[in-house]
Amino acid sequence: MTRSQLVNSILQKRSYLCIGLDTDPQKIPGHLHSFPDPVFEFNRQIIDATKDSCVSYKINTAFYEASGLKGWASMEKTVDYIPSTHFKIADAKRGDIGNTSSQYARAFFETLQFDAVTVAPYMGEDSVRPFLEYKDKWTILLGLTSNSGAGDFELLQTSNGYLFEQVLEKASRWGSPDNLMFVVGATQSAMLKRIRLLTPKHFYLVPGIGVQGGDLAVISKEALTPDAGLLVNASRSIIYASDSQDFAGAAARAAEGYCEEMKKYLH
Amino acid sequence: MTRSQLVNSILQKRSYLCIGLDTDPQKIPGHLHSFPDPVFEFNRQIIDATKDSCVSYKINTAFYEASGLKGWASMEKTVDYIPSTHFKIADAKRGDIGNTSSQYARAFFETLQFDAVTVAPYMGEDSVRPFLEYKDKWTILLGLTSNSGAGDFELLQTSNGYLFEQVLEKASRWGSPDNLMFVVGATQSAMLKRIRLLTPKHFYLVPGIGVQGGDLAVISKEALTPDAGLLVNASRSIIYASDSQDFAGAAARAAEGYCEEMKKYLH
Repeated sequence: MTRSQLVNSILQKRSYLCIGLDTDPQKIPGHLHSFPDPVFEFNRQIIDATKDSCVSYKINTAFYEASGLKGWASMEKTVDYIPSTHFKIADAKRGDIGNTSSQYARAFFETLQFDAVTVAPYMGEDSVRPFLEYKDKWTILLGLTSNSGAGDFELLQTSNGYLFEQVLEKASRWGSPDNLMFVVGATQSAMLKRIRLLTPKHFYLVPGIGVQGGDLAVISKEALTPDAGLLVNASRSIIYASDSQDFAGAAARAAEGYCEEMKKYLH
Repeated sequence: MTRSQLVNSILQKRSYLCIGLDTDPQKIPGHLHSFPDPVFEFNRQIIDATKDSCVSYKINTAFYEASGLKGWASMEKTVDYIPSTHFKIADAKRGDIGNTSSQYARAFFETLQFDAVTVAPYMGEDSVRPFLEYKDKWTILLGLTSNSGAGDFELLQTSNGYLFEQVLEKASRWGSPDNLMFVVGATQSAMLKRIRLLTPKHFYLVPGIGVQGGDLAVISKEALTPDAGLLVNASRSIIYASDSQDFAGAAARAAEGYCEEMKKYLH
């Protein structure tokens, strides 16, 4: 998906909501376990119920790998089921030496038809570049994450600002706002203004609203740009809004709630 | 596997060789493609031929994920096939917020029966801790890697040494030499003395000899400890030693070559 396709989708729907499919077989409603693939059935119903409120789905690969082969099968079916109108993110946090990152890029951009993959920056340029080489695919590099551990390394002072600022600056030279986004945690609102100054044109994938406590109003005020520049993700607060038979209806209402709020912030 | 089991295996075999199964379906000998699972057949023959020369196998997950479901199946069969006497490493470079890292730990320590998994440190303590909570399982944290991109962030100066030194220091407080190792690239020999001073008792997983050009003699001189403290990995220079029908014999000879050299260095 190109940048203009993504921006058009956001402006038409007036939503920059991404829904995280962190689907844990132990947390889905009990009645789904009678289906041949309960995780896929859960995702299918969530997607059907929420697709009008969001522009993107994010699959957290860990939750699928935990079930091994069966989980990988559920992931493949889910990626194929997400409508091609929606931006498909593999939240995989990969990154390795060049010849290995090339294999990860193949996994997520060719074998699985994702539009984007999240990548960890620690190993530097040659670990990131293979992802950037795909036309109309996106690399979403970890910048400043939402968790408490962000303080351990990401917020270390270097000779030229915080470590995460060095990541933003250097990576901005490897890719462009047309193929590179950054992960910026919703709980990091105090830093958002500073981050937007450093990378005025890049999209951010912002996890951490909902269960993790980030504030959608603050994020939107500090980081929205004329062409949005934001994908805000919620996972648990939408997909586990209810564990009843009507879990998908509850998810739809939760997603609509975020979407309605976003309409107020989008210009 | 416990530390003493690993150390005993090394001292008995007089080898600290780890063989990397970076198995690329496009690089294996053509005659294997008549088998139902060519990648597994390649790995099976490599393991049979080399298991007396090495103490560990390292599966690079990227090469399996690139083939999707089929690749994941080959990986499962390969992990199951590696003898329980050998230390089984998932070279997966995972790491995410706590509830997600817990799922990765389940994937590699429960669903797949690995002894160890490589983890990226960027997201800090809560992204690493779920891996450390498993008894007799190992976290192998990226320290200073072998690739050129190591210069981008790992070698940045912070207020307290290089970034990778902060990783070694902080992570040493999260785990112990009984459940935590570090990845130290073989091409980083100039730093090895300094790294050994910081972490005198930890095992290092050292990739980068062979195709990447690291020097086994130098690594061994600088970083071997009385109970070894090293697992040195070679991948391509062993598994692709030949693309003939006798690829496994050629791999065995390459592995024996490393093993013979290691006997000279081990006290």
